[in-house]
Amino acid sequence: MKSYPQRFNISRRAVLSTLAVLPALASPFSLISSQAQSTRSGDPLPSWNDGPAKQAITTFVKETTDQASPKFVPAAERIATFDQDGTLWVEHPIYTQVVYCLDRVPAVVEKKPELKSVQPFKTVLSGNREAMAKLSIRDLEKILFATLSGMTVTEFNAEAKKWMETAKHPRWDRLYTELTYQPMLEVLRYLRDNAYKTYIVTGGGQDFVRVYSEKVYGIPPEQVVGTAGGTKYGYGKDDKPFLTKEPKLLLNDDNAGKPEGIHLMIGRRPYAAFGNSTGDRQMLEYTVAGDGARLSMIVLHDDAQREYAYGPANGLPDTKVGTFTQALYDEAKQKSWTVISMKNDWKRIFAFE
Amino acid sequence: MKSYPQRFNISRRAVLSTLAVLPALASPFSLISSQAQSTRSGDPLPSWNDGPAKQAITTFVKETTDQASPKFVPAAERIATFDQDGTLWVEHPIYTQVVYCLDRVPAVVEKKPELKSVQPFKTVLSGNREAMAKLSIRDLEKILFATLSGMTVTEFNAEAKKWMETAKHPRWDRLYTELTYQPMLEVLRYLRDNAYKTYIVTGGGQDFVRVYSEKVYGIPPEQVVGTAGGTKYGYGKDDKPFLTKEPKLLLNDDNAGKPEGIHLMIGRRPYAAFGNSTGDRQMLEYTVAGDGARLSMIVLHDDAQREYAYGPANGLPDTKVGTFTQALYDEAKQKSWTVISMKNDWKRIFAFE
Repeated sequence: MKSYPQRFNISRRAVLSTLAVLPALASPFSLISSQAQSTRSGDPLPSWNDGPAKQAITTFVKETTDQASPKFVPAAERIATFDQDGTLWVEHPIYTQVVYCLDRVPAVVEKKPELKSVQPFKTVLSGNREAMAKLSIRDLEKILFATLSGMTVTEFNAEAKKWMETAKHPRWDRLYTELTYQPMLEVLRYLRDNAYKTYIVTGGGQDFVRVYSEKVYGIPPEQVVGTAGGTKYGYGKDDKPFLTKEPKLLLNDDNAGKPEGIHLMIGRRPYAAFGNSTGDRQMLEYTVAGDGARLSMIVLHDDAQREYAYGPANGLPDTKVGTFTQALYDEAKQKSWTVISMKNDWKRIFAFE
Repeated sequence: MKSYPQRFNISRRAVLSTLAVLPALASPFSLISSQAQSTRSGDPLPSWNDGPAKQAITTFVKETTDQASPKFVPAAERIATFDQDGTLWVEHPIYTQVVYCLDRVPAVVEKKPELKSVQPFKTVLSGNREAMAKLSIRDLEKILFATLSGMTVTEFNAEAKKWMETAKHPRWDRLYTELTYQPMLEVLRYLRDNAYKTYIVTGGGQDFVRVYSEKVYGIPPEQVVGTAGGTKYGYGKDDKPFLTKEPKLLLNDDNAGKPEGIHLMIGRRPYAAFGNSTGDRQMLEYTVAGDGARLSMIVLHDDAQREYAYGPANGLPDTKVGTFTQALYDEAKQKSWTVISMKNDWKRIFAFE
């Protein structure tokens, strides 16, 4: 069994750069803003500039939904999968879920005071960013296990939901759920309007993403595939059964784990897949390897002004594992995956712009 | 990690009684007959006799779908889960999938001739039913692993599909897929017509059931939760990726594994659940423990004439683990699960009657 952190693909450098900009642990309260709606004009993708990326999406939908087309796909088989971090919302400077785990440390220590003077909890509690930046992967593993397991499923859902309603991204001072990409929300809706079942297939925690997926993306919990830990069935004092989250990895939903997870949870090969990093490589390969019309698309973060620019494909150093490498870029070209340039293909990035 | 056979709940006695009635390995060819449709009259459950079981179903649907009802459930949350073996189709004298595995042995040995003289394969090939009946659980485990893993997902699907189109049940001389319970097919359709998402939650193999679930039950592969093995992503000579079925258990979807599997694969607690054996106990408990209107129902096999009568609740000896025990019957009464008597509640059992 592999352990959680391996799949979170966090390098110490990423943590270092993150901690410098993290907000204080306690976040101000505010409510989730309502989701921006794309205009229901004739154009289903109004936030996209005309170009090969937009064209690839609309052509794919037309070809697979027109009964007269040789590439027609029956409605029941229309499956589309989306990576989350960096594909549907901002992943920089660090995955939102890792921020959540760090934020949960005080509450965990309150319940288990013996951890107060134990590393790495002592360091996280100190608030000393320089010391936190030096935490090892092993330390982060301890933090993830301590904050993502040991509670009931109901308790976890309530905690994560509450956090998502208040925690903000330091750069924009906005809720993380506002930092979804408006052009991708339009793709989700466009595909669903054409009878596609849309799934999130994320390296992030399945239970975490399920807490907000319906509200934020219109994707129900049962259509979220992610890295998943086990649960344990037990009984309370009142004889009522409940499930407890266990520190045991069932599905490492990244890299080859993505097509494996798709087989486990969906059982069909997707017709369309969207990603943005080497962690999505196998999902994109697996999707286009199917018969008939298949669409694999990959988001290139090349817009430092409106969002971020990172990865060797931008001539920038690789700041973390799992980014858009030159090798991935080359494979995209070779295998006819369509690259989405945030800078050139997206009229706007966020709904609030 | 537990191994496959533990969850198949097969006792040697069950195997013994089965082998006596098994058809020859090679089955005559025929096509899957079209599914009988329930009449779309005013009565959504025409194969049910009036009584508390039918009443429980219709009351539940009315209460949870009427917006004026205090027990109204939003459409997006309407989840119903069904055990398969003994709940949706015949499980006697032995699980269909085990018959499949025994039937696959000659093909496996053809590819690996070294197994020919190795036990338990030698015994299965001999066709000596008396010797086969003496196979141990460990032997059966070897057969299940050999016949359910090692091939690509595509190969497995093709093999299982072909078998399902030809193999017949010895008692009725009909395809196994014809031995679905007509009253339960009506319940599935009735729930779906009322915006419920219907899931199979089976102790049987997830990949096996997914092969025919859409055709037989109208349930798509992604709504089948079952005992699942891992897969491994790899590349062929042409650089095309494929998934290979591994002899590794990921989800043991029986007993406590059912609510755990429901959490993993669906992420929501069902509003309605249907089962027939101790393997369904935790799923039924978990379902009714939720807030609001919840329905847990359990099929009692008390009709030896039209189907089978078995289990202590019928005053009969327990011929296998996982049957309808007296303790389960008592819990059903205590927890307000509704017992479905095949003999009294069902006008007819099969569509072909």
